[in-house]
Amino acid sequence: MSSLSTSVKPLLFSYWRSSCSWRVRLALNLKEIPYDIKPINLIKSGGEQHSTEYRDVNPMELVPALHIDGHTLIESLAIMHYLEETRPERPLLPQDVYQRAKVRELCEIIASGIQPLQNIGLLSYVGERKKEWGQHWIHRGFRALEKILSTSSGKYCVGDEISMADCCLIPQACNARRFGIDLRQYPNILRIDSELENYPAFRAAHPTKQPDYPPEQDNPEFLGKLSNLRF
Amino acid sequence: MSSLSTSVKPLLFSYWRSSCSWRVRLALNLKEIPYDIKPINLIKSGGEQHSTEYRDVNPMELVPALHIDGHTLIESLAIMHYLEETRPERPLLPQDVYQRAKVRELCEIIASGIQPLQNIGLLSYVGERKKEWGQHWIHRGFRALEKILSTSSGKYCVGDEISMADCCLIPQACNARRFGIDLRQYPNILRIDSELENYPAFRAAHPTKQPDYPPEQDNPEFLGKLSNLRF
Repeated sequence: MSSLSTSVKPLLFSYWRSSCSWRVRLALNLKEIPYDIKPINLIKSGGEQHSTEYRDVNPMELVPALHIDGHTLIESLAIMHYLEETRPERPLLPQDVYQRAKVRELCEIIASGIQPLQNIGLLSYVGERKKEWGQHWIHRGFRALEKILSTSSGKYCVGDEISMADCCLIPQACNARRFGIDLRQYPNILRIDSELENYPAFRAAHPTKQPDYPPEQDNPEFLGKLSNLRF
Repeated sequence: MSSLSTSVKPLLFSYWRSSCSWRVRLALNLKEIPYDIKPINLIKSGGEQHSTEYRDVNPMELVPALHIDGHTLIESLAIMHYLEETRPERPLLPQDVYQRAKVRELCEIIASGIQPLQNIGLLSYVGERKKEWGQHWIHRGFRALEKILSTSSGKYCVGDEISMADCCLIPQACNARRFGIDLRQYPNILRIDSELENYPAFRAAHPTKQPDYPPEQDNPEFLGKLSNLRF
């Protein structure tokens, strides 16, 4: 993919419904970094992420990947940290070291404790119990998130500044709704999700605003809360 | 657990065989931070991590947790970053921002792309296919790690300095052996694992050197490579 190196703007390999791609779209938007999107369709033809060409971009055969500054980076939290360290304006981590730890705790609970256990790739192995399985791990994680948020949160996940934790939480809240989970059980998560719903950087990163969002999914139920469970 | 606040040294809630606890033991040892261990037995009586008392320490009901500087922190990567930011001597991240991204990529591949899919808690849901299931996800991750290491590694995962990535790789290599995976398929992983095997901080963090290591497991096979698959 040598043509990538001529790209001036960062290029994000993204899938409209991928929550990990969504995290990075949020970080880029919040930092006001212009970028282009190269859609990778995780469903079509067995999944474009498994193509030989894309394996050179991301050997995990997952989205996202970000081509930036002449490098290709993978793993959403590694990418967000790279953006934070190279473009510190509009920070996504607090100054206080303990608050930073709280942000990273919340991010890791989602990135390693919830999302991997309810994503498309895994669920294809689980068989009939998809919904029950996903709900189990989401509830476990959300109980922990809710407990931490009860002391860490202000307007957003940690205090009153938007952080990487919010970039992880909002896509995961959407995933929870897809699994039919009523977020009223988790009042802090629900409150932060509502707070950020109409924030411009969050609106622009939403799955339904992506260039690869398929118009055939354009129905009220889906647009409202992405509440249908389709894999 | 109010008595914890009187602890002078950091207190690590750890289980001898937990690879996530092992990561933090490595980080503490490499930074030469003295600490005490409070063993949490993940097996006994249905798992001490599920007790009411421990849920107050870690609402994810997982190890590790670290009580330090008057705070309790969870999630191994959040803890390692906290240690790095509060005790920058003997760094676990390179100075170069791109190299830092490579360290975090390798960490996240292990922490979110491999370990959650092959840990005890998940495997109890998988039933008879435990070994096959674990091997599948470990191979996917190890293929990606090996590809990145082929350009990032020097003596260790990224260049010639030990980093957080090595703290994640060594416990994961041990887990791979437990699943019966022959690491000769992954020459960079095998080389780094051999390189670090006798490094003092790594020797001291090994499961068999922990206060809660059960002597009844003291057999040549186990001591050699922890190659048995017991859950």
